[in-house]
Parts: sequence; C-alpha cells; structure tokens
Amino acid sequence: MEAWFSYNWMVREQWYEWCGELTEEELLCERTGGVGSILRTLFHIVDVEWSWIRSLQGKPDFQEDFEGYKTLEKVRKLDAEFRPEVETFVYAWDDNMETRIFRDPQPDGSVAVDAWGEVMRHMIAHQIHHLGQLSVWAREIGKRPVSANFIGKSLIKPEE
Amino acid sequence: MEAWFSYNWMVREQWYEWCGELTEEELLCERTGGVGSILRTLFHIVDVEWSWIRSLQGKPDFQEDFEGYKTLEKVRKLDAEFRPEVETFVYAWDDNMETRIFRDPQPDGSVAVDAWGEVMRHMIAHQIHHLGQLSVWAREIGKRPVSANFIGKSLIKPEE
Repeated sequence: MEAWFSYNWMVREQWYEWCGELTEEELLCERTGGVGSILRTLFHIVDVEWSWIRSLQGKPDFQEDFEGYKTLEKVRKLDAEFRPEVETFVYAWDDNMETRIFRDPQPDGSVAVDAWGEVMRHMIAHQIHHLGQLSVWAREIGKRPVSANFIGKSLIKPEE
Repeated sequence: MEAWFSYNWMVREQWYEWCGELTEEELLCERTGGVGSILRTLFHIVDVEWSWIRSLQGKPDFQEDFEGYKTLEKVRKLDAEFRPEVETFVYAWDDNMETRIFRDPQPDGSVAVDAWGEVMRHMIAHQIHHLGQLSVWAREIGKRPVSANFIGKSLIKPEE
C-alpha cells in the first residue's frame, strides 16, 4: 500500500513541477473531460485523497471550494497541509485493515458498504485516472506529459 | 493483487461494451495524446499486460502489430487468447514474489533491475492511466465515459 501512495505522491510532485512551466491561463483553461482544467484536477486529487482518509477515520470532512485555490502555490500548500495526516494513515496500514467495513451514507439515503481495502485502492486509482486525463491535455498544448511509469522509481527494493 | 487485476479486467470489459456503440471510424480516429486512437489504446493495454507476464516468466514475447487487429472483435479475441496465461500468473501470486528480481535488458545495452512487485503495479497503473485518456476522448465525442471507480464493484468483501 505504501509503495502505491509513494508512487502517487512522486508522480503528483512531477506534475506540480511540470505545471510550473505553464501560464496561469493554461492551468485554469476549461478543457474537455475530467473535472475541466489542469489545476482543478490536481486540487480534486488532493481534496479527494484527504476526504477519504478523514472518512475512514470517522472524522469530519469539508468539501474544499476550488475558488479559494486557483494558483499552483495554493494547491501545493493545501496538499502539504493535508499530507501528514494521509501519510500517518498510510504508514500505519496493515493487511488486517483490508476487509474492515466502511459504511458510506449516500445522497439518496441509502448506505454503501465498502471494505477499507477497496477505499484505499479507489483513492490510488482515482489519481492515476485523472493524471491520465492530464496527459492528453498536455499533448493538446504541445507539451510532453509526465511519465506514469511505476517501474524505475525504486519503490520496491528487489532482493538479489 | 488479484483485486487489482479483477478491477482492470472488469473496467476493460465495460470499455469494450462502450466501444460497441461507436462506429469503426470513431474507434480508429487519430486523437491527440496517448497511443493515438481508442481501439489502439485497448490493443496496447492487452499487448503490454501479456508481454510483462511473459517477460516475468522468462518466456518469449513478440510485439503484436496493431495493423492485424483493427476491429473491436479482433482486439477482444486477442485479449481472450492472452487472458488465461495472465490469470494463471495473477492467481498464483503470493507476497514472497514482491521483491523477486527482474532484469530487463534495455535498447541501449544497459539492464534495468526491477522488483516483480514493481512490474505488477506498473501493469495495473498502465491500464488505469490509458483509460483515463479514453475518458477525455469519450467526452470529445459527446459520450459519457466508463466509471473508473474501484468501490462499488464487490472486489473485496467487507467483514461485518
């Protein structure tokens, strides 16, 4: 689990650096698909990751409003604020938590039931999916996207 | 590991069904980013998944040529042909394999060294990344993309 989150944080950092080369207009430009702009996608990833960690712990969450975070610096700052709590949770993960039950009240009044292991994988896949969208938008503006490779990042040490 | 691959196969199947609603022209149309078209993306996912499984087993691989697979039916047939070998490998996975060493000769003559656990996660992330690209292209042609949700698919059974 830790390797997956380390992967996501490493690739996210690379996208932040990539975004540093863009103008504010390019970061905020409304695009087709996903949540609509490059910066809003990164904001959404940060917000959703933290929200799930809060929910699993039974702690209150509040939906962040993108209006207050419309610069790269503000999104990175929010990420840095949320990260310690997410890290603490991820580093304390053990396999016994995989099937722990999570009850998720839905807007229609029903209650979805998920395993904690499903929620964690949902968070991981959520970022990869949205960064795949960014890779298309990157090409649309003529830039090479950040690699999505898991290999080559020394995330698991092979044993000789 | 099995839950991740089941997720990928389930979502891939949903994209195949989604593709069934498209014309051949829409499937093959050259698009910006990724590997260039919707059908080629699915072909690429199938090809790459199988190639890694072959490589981990030290078995010969051959690079499939998309020219021979330019219909949805042909890609699905190829996937069905490769799947049993991939499934056998995934279902036999155990945690002792995580750090097993994989030596991967590179075109420049060097040899990359990866852990098997890294290669498996690379395969998983590879598909999610590319299907994220498809979700943008789906919106470009005015269609709702397949959900990337991991939750709600009964992939891990929560324990009451």
